[in-house]
Amino acid sequence: MNKLAVIGPGLLGGSIALAARQYASWRVSIWARRDEAVAELRDRGIGDEASTDLGAVADGADLAVLCIPIGAMPEVAARLASAIPPGAIVTDVGSVKARVVAELAPIFRERGHFVGSHPMAGSEQTGISAARADLFGGSVCIVTPHDGAKAQAVATVEAFWRTLGCRVRQLSPQEHDETVALISHLPHLLAAALVNSVGQQDPGAFDFVGPGFRDTTRVAGGPPPMWTEILTSNGPAVLKSAEAMIAKLREFMTLLERQTDGDALSMNEFLTHAKTERDRLRASH
Amino acid sequence: MNKLAVIGPGLLGGSIALAARQYASWRVSIWARRDEAVAELRDRGIGDEASTDLGAVADGADLAVLCIPIGAMPEVAARLASAIPPGAIVTDVGSVKARVVAELAPIFRERGHFVGSHPMAGSEQTGISAARADLFGGSVCIVTPHDGAKAQAVATVEAFWRTLGCRVRQLSPQEHDETVALISHLPHLLAAALVNSVGQQDPGAFDFVGPGFRDTTRVAGGPPPMWTEILTSNGPAVLKSAEAMIAKLREFMTLLERQTDGDALSMNEFLTHAKTERDRLRASH
Repeated sequence: MNKLAVIGPGLLGGSIALAARQYASWRVSIWARRDEAVAELRDRGIGDEASTDLGAVADGADLAVLCIPIGAMPEVAARLASAIPPGAIVTDVGSVKARVVAELAPIFRERGHFVGSHPMAGSEQTGISAARADLFGGSVCIVTPHDGAKAQAVATVEAFWRTLGCRVRQLSPQEHDETVALISHLPHLLAAALVNSVGQQDPGAFDFVGPGFRDTTRVAGGPPPMWTEILTSNGPAVLKSAEAMIAKLREFMTLLERQTDGDALSMNEFLTHAKTERDRLRASH
Repeated sequence: MNKLAVIGPGLLGGSIALAARQYASWRVSIWARRDEAVAELRDRGIGDEASTDLGAVADGADLAVLCIPIGAMPEVAARLASAIPPGAIVTDVGSVKARVVAELAPIFRERGHFVGSHPMAGSEQTGISAARADLFGGSVCIVTPHDGAKAQAVATVEAFWRTLGCRVRQLSPQEHDETVALISHLPHLLAAALVNSVGQQDPGAFDFVGPGFRDTTRVAGGPPPMWTEILTSNGPAVLKSAEAMIAKLREFMTLLERQTDGDALSMNEFLTHAKTERDRLRASH
């Protein structure tokens, strides 16, 4: 293997380019839609080459990674499919997988082999300026083989993410979407709703926030158009997880409302259960 | 001023003791209920003296800070009141103020001057081992003078927190409780409910969490008995803020459910509003 085509120059694309050169010996070619992004990639020395010419970037690539918004993927993928070598392997970094895999797998049926991926790394920051080679170190990357995905392509994609420092796990596209609805999309919804709810009830309260509020709401700083697309693309699973969350909140509120000794005990159990799970999380990663 | 009595040896008491010696020239005496805690304080060299004898710790103190659970405050405060010099100033670090001020102010009416405080610092960690002198640096401390609080005592308490690195703000005890319901108690409830909700829906999902979920739920690692007490003591305000939060969540869920183009635009606005507020938060602190 030799040439890696990174399609899209944002936080993830830039970090993949940096990591693929630092932790492996890929020749990295990066595609960006805008001239300014190409110039920034060159200024920062990210990748071996950068271009707005998708054909040039795809030419001779052994592996291509789509790092663009979900909604833009089908159009770019169709152009990519006509430019990559017939045996090239293609993956992506989209945060929703059922939709992306359903749209992209057919595009690469004739030419190339597609396997979906979702590296669970990143932050509320965006853009090339936030890219770093160690972004993926220790994070989980979920690889989502679909019916008909080539085993060899799956193995190659998994090995690629491992090289970048990820712990790789496999889920079906559907399982992936249900899982990330719980651990990523719902938390984003909660963070945004919490900020908006506090702002509506008492904007002056923001002057008093401590580290707890800042941590709890950090992800609400993420890019709104990207998150609108993610949440929309995974609507049913997000709604289901939000309903369950509200039910759980109401369970606790009922205890708080009644304020008997037994309810205080149950509140303590509720909080202890949460702490135990949360501590386990800290210990295991 | 000379002698500071720190009543309680946990994260906050220990950090106050460290900071009062590092950033000012207080002689610091610490009270702990258990011999083991006194031994640990001495081992770590925290404070000038440590003792289980409240009378000895209070003797000659110019300022005393109650750093014990809210529920334990009245009993200890009553003993403290009989041991401090008549003109001593007393404050506390309780996360709920209406209840604490109502219980403690009368105790110090005859002897000493009480003013409530709530330094918005700390973390999900607890205990002496987590104490550090810079815990308060840059954090907000809310001082809550009640009707009848002595202006000189308020000024002294505010100056004390500033010395430790806090930005001091004043609120009435009632205003304080409504504010922290929004920015601290509700976030805690959400974090705990999120962990429990995910654990109930799919415990396996915890294996996939990224930094977003970890940040959003960090506060759920806090001590359950302390949080049970806090939430119970501020029940009505917490319930009100939780109802408003659920209404805000449902507002967003309705947009997600309908999935028209206009609703996607509104979702983007909802998320943009949250991001704008959240970014302002980051910029200002």
